[in-house]
Amino acid sequence: MNNRICDILNIKSPVISGGMVWCSGWELASAVSNEGGLGLVGAGSMTPDVLREHIKKCKLATNKTFGVNIPLMNPNSSKQIDIVIEEKVPVVFTSAGNPATYTQKLIDNGVKVVHVVANEKFALKAQEAGVSAIVCEGFEAGGHNGKEETTTMVLINQLVGKLNIPIIAAGGIAKGEQILVMMVLGAEGVQIGSLFAASKESSAHINFKQAIVDATEGDTMLFLRKLSPTRLLKGGFYQKIQEAEQKGASKEELLEIIGVGKTRIGMFEGNVEEGELEIGQVSSLINEIMSIEDIFTKLRKEYSEALVRMQSINKSI
Amino acid sequence: MNNRICDILNIKSPVISGGMVWCSGWELASAVSNEGGLGLVGAGSMTPDVLREHIKKCKLATNKTFGVNIPLMNPNSSKQIDIVIEEKVPVVFTSAGNPATYTQKLIDNGVKVVHVVANEKFALKAQEAGVSAIVCEGFEAGGHNGKEETTTMVLINQLVGKLNIPIIAAGGIAKGEQILVMMVLGAEGVQIGSLFAASKESSAHINFKQAIVDATEGDTMLFLRKLSPTRLLKGGFYQKIQEAEQKGASKEELLEIIGVGKTRIGMFEGNVEEGELEIGQVSSLINEIMSIEDIFTKLRKEYSEALVRMQSINKSI
Repeated sequence: MNNRICDILNIKSPVISGGMVWCSGWELASAVSNEGGLGLVGAGSMTPDVLREHIKKCKLATNKTFGVNIPLMNPNSSKQIDIVIEEKVPVVFTSAGNPATYTQKLIDNGVKVVHVVANEKFALKAQEAGVSAIVCEGFEAGGHNGKEETTTMVLINQLVGKLNIPIIAAGGIAKGEQILVMMVLGAEGVQIGSLFAASKESSAHINFKQAIVDATEGDTMLFLRKLSPTRLLKGGFYQKIQEAEQKGASKEELLEIIGVGKTRIGMFEGNVEEGELEIGQVSSLINEIMSIEDIFTKLRKEYSEALVRMQSINKSI
Repeated sequence: MNNRICDILNIKSPVISGGMVWCSGWELASAVSNEGGLGLVGAGSMTPDVLREHIKKCKLATNKTFGVNIPLMNPNSSKQIDIVIEEKVPVVFTSAGNPATYTQKLIDNGVKVVHVVANEKFALKAQEAGVSAIVCEGFEAGGHNGKEETTTMVLINQLVGKLNIPIIAAGGIAKGEQILVMMVLGAEGVQIGSLFAASKESSAHINFKQAIVDATEGDTMLFLRKLSPTRLLKGGFYQKIQEAEQKGASKEELLEIIGVGKTRIGMFEGNVEEGELEIGQVSSLINEIMSIEDIFTKLRKEYSEALVRMQSINKSI
């Protein structure tokens, strides 16, 4: 058994909880780390002060490795980088921005850096910037997404063999057998979002968690291609914007309709009709709000069962 | 080793070549069947007479099982159903239409029926109609596609355990390790399109094959959501329609721009700028025009290597 993701990140289980806006507070992050995975605090929806508070609470709640996800487009990202360095957070996942900006600074301060990408071009760029690993996030993923719309399976196949650093697969993963499958394709870890967003420890509003559980096939959709492709649950917010898109609305008109603070309203305050509900396609496979402990037990059981099932699969084709 | 797809279809290798318009003539179908897989003649781009000719030639070129894919929306589909019965074709894959229409008639005439679906609702409907198996085709697939945009991985996970009949995974598959992975997730066979469309034996124009080989990430896109979601290679045809879509063109306006016979112009006559080039996202992984024999050798090698690699994967997570 040789898993570079576990070695680099100093974790036992190569299962990472995505650092999601409004979901990934200290409770979720510490619970995942306590299970042996890597919990990430999601800085994207936090002011610098709130981030520092979550890091401090996370340290008290676990003695295992945890990390912080920092979206680089965020106006607070520079301050957030300073905070994770000051607080000696061991791992930072950067996303939505240029990995060259802060990677060296973080490394110089003893922080391991992983960057999130949705295509080969940025994967190679991130490797060049010196990150330790990359998250390859496919079309299935919730929230902001790649312009190429490459699915997780195709993306992993495209990148394996082209990088020296290990790959963490993300997008569409919510079952133990999928973790196994991603390892067979050559990934060395997985990042899971939606399943953890709907967990008991997620800081999301219960209405949003329930909406994830209620979602069936076709209930999430990628849209806003003119601005930045985003996957979310259908609902009033989606409907309004989708109608405008169909009529050929310009970027400016779309921005006006979107307004501000809509993810907070939907995901944190629980107004599922008017708010923006960023979540992955795999919501259709999530049917219960579970504790992190129960989720890990289930993932481990599914993983083991898939390994056993493999014994009876055709030895040749 | 117990594989219901091989048993039902009377084949050795659970690898099926999709019955693609302008690509899947008797040469491709018989070559795939001769390798032990299931070759399908694609009736979608054939008049009834041409279909009969291809069936006759296919019988001469192989003594193994082969089949015909019939898109049910095609105005010729009723005649084509009669022809496959008259010619005693052992297997028919139906797609793009109601599986209840012809399934019983085909079964009564000794034909095995498999139906292609892109969502759970139609999968259950097809099972009820009495088909022997279903093809679950995800968002990655070329040509006409499901409205839900569910990816192959998520779709398979969603359906496994909900059906009594076996599942054939399709969409985004072009490597041996992916075949293994689909079996681990619970599929019992795979249907491969793009890789075979670019094969030497495909009846597609060399310009189209070369365009598949040249394609890199992001070069195919799903569009035409207002009419019928379709994935194709970007180019002049795509550009023109995409611009109209962005300006909010109506269904009628889109149909006018599309015109008629555009897949023939692009895929069969080789005018890659003006024609419609229906192909899957996995084109980015296809880098060579190969013979069917070489493709099968490669797929088998990749499958075996992935099986070996599995031995060194973490036994638990």
